[in-house]
Amino acid sequence: MKISRYFMPTLREDPADAEIISHKLMVRAGMIRKIAAGIYDYLPLGLRVLRKVENIVREEMNRAGSIEVLLPSIIPADLWKETGRWDVYGKELLRVKDRHENDFCYGPTHEEAMTDLVRRDVKSYKQLPVILYQIQTKFRDEIRPRFGLMRGREFIMKDAYSFDRDEESAAESYRKMFRAYERIFKRCGLEFRAVEAATGQIGGSSSHEFMVLADSGEDCIVSCQKCGYASNIEKADVLSENITRMDKTMPPTIKVKTPGKRTIDEVSKFLKKEPRDFIKTLIYTVGGNNGEACAVLLRGDYEVNETKLARLLETDQLEMASPEKVKEITNASVGFAGPKGLKCRIVADFSIKGFANGVSGANEDDFHVLNVFEGRDFRVKIYGDIRNVIQGDACPRCAESILSFHRGIEVGHVFRLGTKYSKAMKAVFLDPNGKKKTIVMGTYGIGIARIAAAAIEQRHDDHGIEWPFSIAPFHIIILPLNKNDKKVADTAASMEEELENAGYEVLLDDRDERAGIKFNDADLIGVPLQIVVGSRGLKNGEIEIKIRKDGRKMHVKLDDLKEKLTEIISELKAG
Amino acid sequence: MKISRYFMPTLREDPADAEIISHKLMVRAGMIRKIAAGIYDYLPLGLRVLRKVENIVREEMNRAGSIEVLLPSIIPADLWKETGRWDVYGKELLRVKDRHENDFCYGPTHEEAMTDLVRRDVKSYKQLPVILYQIQTKFRDEIRPRFGLMRGREFIMKDAYSFDRDEESAAESYRKMFRAYERIFKRCGLEFRAVEAATGQIGGSSSHEFMVLADSGEDCIVSCQKCGYASNIEKADVLSENITRMDKTMPPTIKVKTPGKRTIDEVSKFLKKEPRDFIKTLIYTVGGNNGEACAVLLRGDYEVNETKLARLLETDQLEMASPEKVKEITNASVGFAGPKGLKCRIVADFSIKGFANGVSGANEDDFHVLNVFEGRDFRVKIYGDIRNVIQGDACPRCAESILSFHRGIEVGHVFRLGTKYSKAMKAVFLDPNGKKKTIVMGTYGIGIARIAAAAIEQRHDDHGIEWPFSIAPFHIIILPLNKNDKKVADTAASMEEELENAGYEVLLDDRDERAGIKFNDADLIGVPLQIVVGSRGLKNGEIEIKIRKDGRKMHVKLDDLKEKLTEIISELKAG
Repeated sequence: MKISRYFMPTLREDPADAEIISHKLMVRAGMIRKIAAGIYDYLPLGLRVLRKVENIVREEMNRAGSIEVLLPSIIPADLWKETGRWDVYGKELLRVKDRHENDFCYGPTHEEAMTDLVRRDVKSYKQLPVILYQIQTKFRDEIRPRFGLMRGREFIMKDAYSFDRDEESAAESYRKMFRAYERIFKRCGLEFRAVEAATGQIGGSSSHEFMVLADSGEDCIVSCQKCGYASNIEKADVLSENITRMDKTMPPTIKVKTPGKRTIDEVSKFLKKEPRDFIKTLIYTVGGNNGEACAVLLRGDYEVNETKLARLLETDQLEMASPEKVKEITNASVGFAGPKGLKCRIVADFSIKGFANGVSGANEDDFHVLNVFEGRDFRVKIYGDIRNVIQGDACPRCAESILSFHRGIEVGHVFRLGTKYSKAMKAVFLDPNGKKKTIVMGTYGIGIARIAAAAIEQRHDDHGIEWPFSIAPFHIIILPLNKNDKKVADTAASMEEELENAGYEVLLDDRDERAGIKFNDADLIGVPLQIVVGSRGLKNGEIEIKIRKDGRKMHVKLDDLKEKLTEIISELKAG
Repeated sequence: MKISRYFMPTLREDPADAEIISHKLMVRAGMIRKIAAGIYDYLPLGLRVLRKVENIVREEMNRAGSIEVLLPSIIPADLWKETGRWDVYGKELLRVKDRHENDFCYGPTHEEAMTDLVRRDVKSYKQLPVILYQIQTKFRDEIRPRFGLMRGREFIMKDAYSFDRDEESAAESYRKMFRAYERIFKRCGLEFRAVEAATGQIGGSSSHEFMVLADSGEDCIVSCQKCGYASNIEKADVLSENITRMDKTMPPTIKVKTPGKRTIDEVSKFLKKEPRDFIKTLIYTVGGNNGEACAVLLRGDYEVNETKLARLLETDQLEMASPEKVKEITNASVGFAGPKGLKCRIVADFSIKGFANGVSGANEDDFHVLNVFEGRDFRVKIYGDIRNVIQGDACPRCAESILSFHRGIEVGHVFRLGTKYSKAMKAVFLDPNGKKKTIVMGTYGIGIARIAAAAIEQRHDDHGIEWPFSIAPFHIIILPLNKNDKKVADTAASMEEELENAGYEVLLDDRDERAGIKFNDADLIGVPLQIVVGSRGLKNGEIEIKIRKDGRKMHVKLDDLKEKLTEIISELKAG
């Protein structure tokens, strides 16, 4: 492909709205353009990468025995009403009315539509198991789209759904998909980790996320070097602690003035206390806007884990209370809440059990209280593990090692769904005894564009992208210098043809541009191999090969080029 | 692929809502399932055919120098407002509001979005010409979706857009696309014709449609055997006629009672006249609901062509008047309008010029008038060619032959757009003299699923589909009979593996079903080659090959199978 006939508009400046490197580089390399918040054009170079990823995903899904279908993007609301998700999914669901005022949504995920397909055409156990997948454009109306393709609103996803006759068979389908995912991310050249994950809005009994390790990741993952445990922080259990700080003297509470000090950080400095001496008191509302208020307590240096909290409270509608609501419940502004004298329900992390000599807000503006004792000054209705693990916590599985912390980008997610959807939608089959049974399901997603973005987060330098060979938009870019030297131009052109005929994907920078611009663009777009064709080298029958990812350069005789490429590329493919 | 592990639910009964054969067969063959009116699931077999078509389209677009991109399906309304189409597109445009109440549409076509992409990144004549294409899911909220994939609401389209520096270059891009389309439809095994077409809502200066010839086609196309002229009836000009029927005596009009006779057919029988003696009088409103009423006249045996009429009246809002409006204008019910004494503007087809002794409605219920003369009894404001050609009309280009009529299915459409979109959206470039010029555009569409449906309309018999080899879901289906004969099962299984390794796409019917069911399903799904493996044949080391499209059967020694297949398939590919 000649760049002069291609559409690859590179930019020198980072886009103003880009916060992370993959977003910056994808825009600058002419891979994507924003058309609206979280909605992007895929330009030729970007699309080539997505197609490479799609093909790897397709091959591995097929190899695992999954079968490709394609369902509509516009789904009738009726299907979503059968499972109840029409009402609970919230504003991320893009709702649409057609010309006859019928309700539809732009599918953000396809559990309902797939279950509908299967329940109509699967009648017998003989047709099970079946794993259907599609590679499809989806839409989630994110409240804050950002990070380019990482958290877009319209995005391409591979979603698969397994249908089995029982839990045992469903577990086998889950394992198949798990292994397929491992192969996919490995082939895409990603450093990743599969971690235990919370099931969230999709529901179901258990799930794993596939995380690409990168500092820019939105997720925090923890792992144990010793036993191999790995989990999203949302899911990681806290090893139960022994509380040994009981002060037998039980001194009375003391109200102290803390003018304008609201955060634990501010108050602890002001009172010369440690954050771990505080009883952090958060006011939530449970069950929607007009729901019940609930105070949530945990040790001052801990962060609440809302996934765990929601599970403890048995709700999927949990929100931090508004400042008005906080005022109503505590008689004070945000920052001065404390458990003593609160009228609402109190739930607490295990770390509050037996808490002694605690510091908390006084439920009065500009005042805090010292010597707060659990049991004497307040009573907790329910205890639970509702905090995130923190640096220094031990592994909840083996208890023998301290957890490690990493940032991660979620690129894949596998769920065991049980019968949550099939039961609601009456997806049944006849077992060998002619008895009706409910199908057991699983659901498995991969963000196609996220894989591309995550690869950039892991592989780039100051000059641009360093694509893994398997998902690079082209394998080789030829850079003819000395544009006025006809021999250079001719050699480059015939080299392009020859290498393309040999099965390589080749970009030829035939533009009438300075060498510096060509080098910069080649580094920016990150094609794994650069071949520099210059007048001086050609006099000796030589060209130069540069390997993008490590900058290695080598002079190669024209006659040896193909052989050398074979050698380098088998090395690149291996690592 | 083993059918037992595949998802291919065939049906014995035609779906109740299917009117045409392709719709019936696609549902019965387990290729598609309806999820809502005009919205379909593509099942594995259906998706394979679509992918085959897509790949042919992609290869030919790339060969023609067009470059693949992928734009979002959800387009900001602002872009559509720039061209004014947001207001005029009507209810086929699926309008959407996001969570912030911003307006978007689900793109039914992408002129605006593509022009936006190009205007942002194309600055210089050096970057032109460029032809961008995408293969994408689109949505048109058809008022009456029907015929399965033929007129669905959600559908897959290949849309391409050319951007050129001047009309001459734009004409060359148009020719390139035209030739690419010819290759595409040929490779898909379709009998088609390129015809001149009306430009309609997309606009622009000229266009061609690619029509697959089939009796079920919604379009009527006319062609001339002599000079090769071919056109959609919407676009076909009428060769101007000489009117020679002037009656010099000019007898006075006579009002006659025609109780309850409204249609020309009814009145002509009642009055013992020919339809061609009538002045057909239709009342239209021009310019929307409260627009001006206009009477449209043409000879009684002619049909009005609304595309031509709209052009003559210089409007894109043209509708048959409501019965109330007709009453207001003519003082009579629908069916009794005539030009004599009408107060509204009168336009007429050339066939009305010098019309003598005409019969028309009397603008009074249950009365018609005889001896109506153009010039004496009414005056026409504008004449034009506003009728469809009919059987017996001469070719408008060569005038030497009578036109032939065919039904056709539109599978592709190419338009020259000129600067309609680029001017409205300020898509400009700097020419070699540094002067700003407006980009000249073209737009080119292909309905991917329509190609599959049209292929079925052309190639089927009472038993099912007869796929062209190039877009068949599989090349070969192996039918092992005598399920209890282990040798049959083993031979079939190893044959599957061997033929797949040889590059064929093979379906193996390993189901525990009767031979009759296997034969029926094989004929239904229309795989080009069937290989029957039976106990008796195997005793002689033989299997049977059946060619689906002509029913030819041949006994082949197992050892000769591959050679024979090569021979048959090269024959199938050729024709």
